Amino acid sequence: MFDLHPRLAADTVEVLQLPLCTLRLMDDARFPWLILVPMRAGVRELHALAAAERSQLMDEIVRCSQALEAVCAPDKLNVGALGNLVPQLHVHIVARRIDDAAWPGPVWGSGAALAYEAPVRTALIEKLRGALSGAA
Amino acid sequence: MFDLHPRLAADTVEVLQLPLCTLRLMDDARFPWLILVPMRAGVRELHALAAAERSQLMDEIVRCSQALEAVCAPDKLNVGALGNLVPQLHVHIVARRIDDAAWPGPVWGSGAALAYEAPVRTALIEKLRGALSGAA
Repeated sequence: MFDLHPRLAADTVEVLQLPLCTLRLMDDARFPWLILVPMRAGVRELHALAAAERSQLMDEIVRCSQALEAVCAPDKLNVGALGNLVPQLHVHIVARRIDDAAWPGPVWGSGAALAYEAPVRTALIEKLRGALSGAA
Repeated sequence: MFDLHPRLAADTVEVLQLPLCTLRLMDDARFPWLILVPMRAGVRELHALAAAERSQLMDEIVRCSQALEAVCAPDKLNVGALGNLVPQLHVHIVARRIDDAAWPGPVWGSGAALAYEAPVRTALIEKLRGALSGAA
């Protein structure tokens, strides 16, 4: 049975569920930062997913990338599956700007998260949901 | 027409060509580190690839992941498409160990590369080619 890793549960809020993944927003106002977590128990690496699941994951990465582009107009997207700290397979999709707090370095390991003000976070989630439903 | 970005050409050596990507080894003995570059001109983001190309890219990521596991027995794989410094779409697949030079942080932006001794690099490339041909 799939359970979201407690660290991911603590650091993120749910945006919506896609066919394979639960989509979460990292509670870090420095970067618009989505996390896709395939709802499959015990999976650590991409190649542990079945081929059809990997294809679905790529589709969901693309949908989320396009939603972030539509809502945030980033200079670059960063996509990554690391899992050095949280072993449960999860894919980061981060909207980067050339004037953001970590540019041109990676967001991972770059300083402390800065939580959103609640109304700002709610508004961003609503915009992302709208963009994702439009792209469905 | 596809040309490998000069920075990628300078930092990596060719392992072999797959159907979509040229596969390169980063010349950094600190981490076994592969880079897949789709041979498509002008592509910066995953979602700029056609759907069939994205599916092929996922297949090639998995093949390279399995080859790195077979040859290097890492504790974790890190997979990422960043492109903050080199805009040409490229996917990193890095074999991580819990005692490596950057653990648990990301390899990107972590200190200076340490070039392989040539015979060590040649031997690693031969092993990777063997593992990739076995997985084909």
